[in-house]
Amino acid sequence: MEPKLLLTPGPTPIPPEVSQAMSQGMIGHRSSDFTELMQHVQSNIGEVFGSKYPVAVLTSSGTSALETAMINLVGKDESIIIIASGAFGDRFKNIAKAHPFHVYVYEVPWGEGVNVQEFEAFLNDKSDIRAVFSQACETSTAVLHPVKEIGRAVKNYDPSTLFIVDGVSAVGGTPFDIEAQSIDCLVTGSQKALMLPPGIAFVTMNEAARVRASQNRLPKFYLDINQYFSALEKHSTPFTPAVSLIQGLDKVLSIYKEEGIDNIFDRHMKMKNMIRAGLTALGLELLVEEAYASPTVTAFKGEEAELSHIKDTLQKEFGITIAGGQKQLKGKILRIGHMGYMFPKDMLAVLAALESILSRYHNKNYYGTALTAAQEAYHE
Amino acid sequence: MEPKLLLTPGPTPIPPEVSQAMSQGMIGHRSSDFTELMQHVQSNIGEVFGSKYPVAVLTSSGTSALETAMINLVGKDESIIIIASGAFGDRFKNIAKAHPFHVYVYEVPWGEGVNVQEFEAFLNDKSDIRAVFSQACETSTAVLHPVKEIGRAVKNYDPSTLFIVDGVSAVGGTPFDIEAQSIDCLVTGSQKALMLPPGIAFVTMNEAARVRASQNRLPKFYLDINQYFSALEKHSTPFTPAVSLIQGLDKVLSIYKEEGIDNIFDRHMKMKNMIRAGLTALGLELLVEEAYASPTVTAFKGEEAELSHIKDTLQKEFGITIAGGQKQLKGKILRIGHMGYMFPKDMLAVLAALESILSRYHNKNYYGTALTAAQEAYHE
Repeated sequence: MEPKLLLTPGPTPIPPEVSQAMSQGMIGHRSSDFTELMQHVQSNIGEVFGSKYPVAVLTSSGTSALETAMINLVGKDESIIIIASGAFGDRFKNIAKAHPFHVYVYEVPWGEGVNVQEFEAFLNDKSDIRAVFSQACETSTAVLHPVKEIGRAVKNYDPSTLFIVDGVSAVGGTPFDIEAQSIDCLVTGSQKALMLPPGIAFVTMNEAARVRASQNRLPKFYLDINQYFSALEKHSTPFTPAVSLIQGLDKVLSIYKEEGIDNIFDRHMKMKNMIRAGLTALGLELLVEEAYASPTVTAFKGEEAELSHIKDTLQKEFGITIAGGQKQLKGKILRIGHMGYMFPKDMLAVLAALESILSRYHNKNYYGTALTAAQEAYHE
Repeated sequence: MEPKLLLTPGPTPIPPEVSQAMSQGMIGHRSSDFTELMQHVQSNIGEVFGSKYPVAVLTSSGTSALETAMINLVGKDESIIIIASGAFGDRFKNIAKAHPFHVYVYEVPWGEGVNVQEFEAFLNDKSDIRAVFSQACETSTAVLHPVKEIGRAVKNYDPSTLFIVDGVSAVGGTPFDIEAQSIDCLVTGSQKALMLPPGIAFVTMNEAARVRASQNRLPKFYLDINQYFSALEKHSTPFTPAVSLIQGLDKVLSIYKEEGIDNIFDRHMKMKNMIRAGLTALGLELLVEEAYASPTVTAFKGEEAELSHIKDTLQKEFGITIAGGQKQLKGKILRIGHMGYMFPKDMLAVLAALESILSRYHNKNYYGTALTAAQEAYHE
């Protein structure tokens, strides 16, 4: 009977009013009802993406939005740099390698943020780089990269080199301003800070990227972004859209408006500070240093046996789900999501449960330790 | 307050229990809950597709499934035939033309079924045709093509030539048996007879097609079908799936099981017979002759002014939505959907409303005319 508390970095919980919006009944995707829906969505979505340009909605998952950015913005035999700092950077690599590009990979140790000076040296060493791709938040390591500084480095290298950012698990939980951050194209999926089920993905592009996309000649149809932007001018989509998810999106954007976007970003920062303070107070080692800590997800290190015990006991005794590590971090970290439909009281709940689990595990008294630290962080 | 009656050939109404299933709450797509869900789906879905092979579930709309079939089964510079008989055949052409294929188009007059003898002559006139693509039901004209006979012609031409069928608005409403119909690959979307919102698409392939797909070297990532089939072996998906829609799909398949798949197909045939008899009794001319009439959608012809009056009045006075024609059939036909969550009593309702509208429009007494014909068809 106990409701589950899902604190994973995606999929994330869906607000009940969003579930309800997605069950309001089917409308034809060529009807005026749908046109109005799309118009309403477009008028509210730009703020979340920090973009004054249209935001295309694809019926697909985040991976396809990454591929869409790539195959619309990079031509045959062109050179690109992929910044890879975790499991999703690896996916970026795999997408790029499936296509006829010349790919340089800038590897960042997992758990670290991009060192912009070092990246700049790597970049300046290469000629004819047409585009640079990076995650904003690398979900697998809980790192938020210095996007603005990377963007500046890209534009210093060559103003016509495009900077493409994967905003999965960042958009909606942390502010973007694509102009100030020198981002030419920002993409994301629906299932993270945007509080929706997976199934739709988003692509926004400035004028420079739109021009590049319109000139791109790689064979494609469903992932041809030009078709989406053309249809958007008539508040439509080129192919049958995931209507129920877009109905949900419209409700999410209303919720954002109601809470206020700055308040939402503040809440995410607050949850990050609470969880980091609490974990530290419990003697757990954070994977990511403060300067690169994501406001949407936090990772902590530990011995495999202890981590496994923590994760299982949280689940079994308290009905709280958190996530393990992926690939080379499997068995080495746990990750707590704090994005979207998650709140300060959820941070208190998971920290209190951790106090209880660790007190028994280490036969030591942790009661109040994490909570006190988190409560102080909350009031800072 | 009046609930709307949506009788369009997609999107179609969603059963309330399916809506409920889609709101049951998020589960992680890498959790054992999701693995069980996928396993359950796989054990029930084959019957609907008439396929003993796995059915891959893509997070995307039907168009992407068509493109997926194409770019996984056709190599660079290979020759294919597209059977085009309406708006969706045109889309098939556009997808094919976006890729480096040698495309022959076999044009069928809109509203007609494929004449298999003529098609066979067209086919035998070409050499090195590697694949033939056809809609089963061309939604825009309400035609159901003689799929089995086309398949036989393809295999007579060359047993290694693949036959790929677009099952949109057919799968779920009419029986398939891919082996008996010589179909190598069958694809469809979720939003038609399958009673789901749009957002997921399906691809099933026999061994010959799987081999061809595994050898295909066209650049692709999100639409690389091999990744889906590999993941399916572990009851998983290669990319974040549209979890809520798959939860809905599982419920749809339970409903199919409960009603019995043969009863469902019978219901669709019955609705087709009722609506065709009723429309004919009202003096309305059917677009498609009986031999090619689809069990999922029916089109009738008329003067533009009369059709427009019928469509608007059904909507305004009776809360019933039907669809107009597309492209070259715009203003020339209306289409009534009878697939998925639609029932004989809905056919009686729309026919009764039509009697009423036409009686006023023509100042003539049609009362009982269409209903009597439909009731007789129901009891046949």
